[in-house]
Amino acid sequence: MAKLLPEQEHPVKAFGWAARDQSGHLSPFVFSRRARGEKDVSFKILYCGMCHSDLHMIKNEWGNSTYPLVPGHEIVGVVTEVGSKVEKFKVGHKVGVGCMVGSCYSCDNCTNDLENYCSQMILTYSAKYYDGTITYGGYSDIMVADEHFVVRIPDSLPLDATAPLLCAGITVYSPLKYYGLDKPGFHIGVVGLGGLGHMAVKFAKAMGAKVTVISTSPNKKQEAIERLSADSFLVSRDQDQIQAATGTMDGIIDTVSASHPLLPLTGLLKSHGKLILVGAPEKPFELPAFPLLMGRKAVGGSCIRGMKETQEMVDFAAKHGITSDIEVIPVEYVNTAMERMLKADVRYRFVIDIGNTIKSSI
Amino acid sequence: MAKLLPEQEHPVKAFGWAARDQSGHLSPFVFSRRARGEKDVSFKILYCGMCHSDLHMIKNEWGNSTYPLVPGHEIVGVVTEVGSKVEKFKVGHKVGVGCMVGSCYSCDNCTNDLENYCSQMILTYSAKYYDGTITYGGYSDIMVADEHFVVRIPDSLPLDATAPLLCAGITVYSPLKYYGLDKPGFHIGVVGLGGLGHMAVKFAKAMGAKVTVISTSPNKKQEAIERLSADSFLVSRDQDQIQAATGTMDGIIDTVSASHPLLPLTGLLKSHGKLILVGAPEKPFELPAFPLLMGRKAVGGSCIRGMKETQEMVDFAAKHGITSDIEVIPVEYVNTAMERMLKADVRYRFVIDIGNTIKSSI
Repeated sequence: MAKLLPEQEHPVKAFGWAARDQSGHLSPFVFSRRARGEKDVSFKILYCGMCHSDLHMIKNEWGNSTYPLVPGHEIVGVVTEVGSKVEKFKVGHKVGVGCMVGSCYSCDNCTNDLENYCSQMILTYSAKYYDGTITYGGYSDIMVADEHFVVRIPDSLPLDATAPLLCAGITVYSPLKYYGLDKPGFHIGVVGLGGLGHMAVKFAKAMGAKVTVISTSPNKKQEAIERLSADSFLVSRDQDQIQAATGTMDGIIDTVSASHPLLPLTGLLKSHGKLILVGAPEKPFELPAFPLLMGRKAVGGSCIRGMKETQEMVDFAAKHGITSDIEVIPVEYVNTAMERMLKADVRYRFVIDIGNTIKSSI
Repeated sequence: MAKLLPEQEHPVKAFGWAARDQSGHLSPFVFSRRARGEKDVSFKILYCGMCHSDLHMIKNEWGNSTYPLVPGHEIVGVVTEVGSKVEKFKVGHKVGVGCMVGSCYSCDNCTNDLENYCSQMILTYSAKYYDGTITYGGYSDIMVADEHFVVRIPDSLPLDATAPLLCAGITVYSPLKYYGLDKPGFHIGVVGLGGLGHMAVKFAKAMGAKVTVISTSPNKKQEAIERLSADSFLVSRDQDQIQAATGTMDGIIDTVSASHPLLPLTGLLKSHGKLILVGAPEKPFELPAFPLLMGRKAVGGSCIRGMKETQEMVDFAAKHGITSDIEVIPVEYVNTAMERMLKADVRYRFVIDIGNTIKSSI
């Protein structure tokens, strides 16, 4: 049987912007979405955040991209239809979809609200769905998703600045909780002040922590303290500053994806402190064992989280008035935004105004 | 004031075996112990385990040795005198002293039963005591120690095979507890089958785990399974065996002090699994971030533990009939034993028969 074209695969017409090859250049793309199933929620996408991983994926830098590729996993919008067995959502609800749209529902991880670690977890884009078709992300006009993978956005949250919570937000919120770093009065370090880092500052502050931003760029001090209300700032290459802060932190969230030394960071931890990696440099870290043993310290990883905690995180954000700092762009600007993101030239997340701009570009 | 000779510093005559320089050669040594204070317990040493760190220390391989150096921090014996304010011990009690004999008593670590992580913790030998004199270890006839740093050995435990619990035992018992790896039914890997590793197998089995020994030496399979009742065995260099065990372990206790790759070990862990280092290779490990993130895995360290848990560990050992597998030697054999220890030629711990042999060697 001949392979169906993307616009023929499914009955529901859709359009978005896609990369066609590893140049990563995005351009208008006509495709289709599946018919709404009985457990599915259909929604009109209004905004989609641009995550750094979108950049890796459009260029196939992780080797798992399938073209045409519609990126976007920080997707928010308004429900237009619900299936007959949908329980949590109604037409008109503000909703979001993050990094995943499926999992096995039955493994240890799935039954413990850790679908994100399910070996059969299905990513929101460039992954094979249950029916064998390829998933398409949120740089597009409409979405159809199983309600299990949809979160409710409280009305008090602005949709545009909430979109990045669905990846950047949960990525830093979850390890603060899981590794016990959410205790009021704790001193938390945040390495890197970008899309993830600025969210880590906001969540840790809301949890009652004293927060120190650690960055290679001295010129980020002012924005860390004045704009994001961090309590202090360390220049990571300044030996004297690092030395003076030795043994003062209960935990560190390290958001940096470029290679960097871990030893100064483990040195900042108190005994029993934890350094949590949420960025993944390509080259392995050098990890000296002695500092870990002598202070019973740990280096852990974390990667988004299951749907239950993603909803909790959004609700926590609503309660504490936490959103992402964003720059809203029209979809026509997306290739330029990718270039600027590569240079970290954004405070701190691009969000595409899908609702007002995507139709006009077809 | 002229520096007093070791035999003149204190009023109580003592003798042991000491290294005089970094050749590490041990020979008879006359020194002295302090007068028993009101909180002190004096005891006749009957046995002392030989730890691999004794070997590093007598040769000053960690750069912090003070000569003459009397090693030994797996010390057991029988109480001969107690100070007026001693509450926990009576003459005739079987007791032990492990790796430390003092701490500040007031820091966060000390007030949380974590004296081992106190920055002013005083090691049992080659360290400066409160009075400025150098501490001497258990390769000697008598010991005087603050009761806080003395543990009671239950009568059911044989003293000789219990001595190694005081360092090797607590080193592996504590991380199993702290990192939540003590749950019945867990699958625990133990890397390296030596003084630490064989204790880890015994404690993990007693906690109800399925235990897999991971070793570079295929010829250790039989002893792992038949002698130590491990459930299975993996040759760490056998890619097929490692591959087949991918994602099956809840935790791993890594006791190896030689350089070795961590990636195969993190691969053996299930999601949320923990790899705990209790050996410290000189060169840093290579730690790839991606496997930690994708499975929310952690690499932690641990180093002995405070006195409260050390007592708990000894009581747990008594309840479950756990002791170390030992080879008892006369003190005259100690230099040969050091050479054999360097070659890992012992199953699994040398214990010096202090009570029966040390006097005759003076």
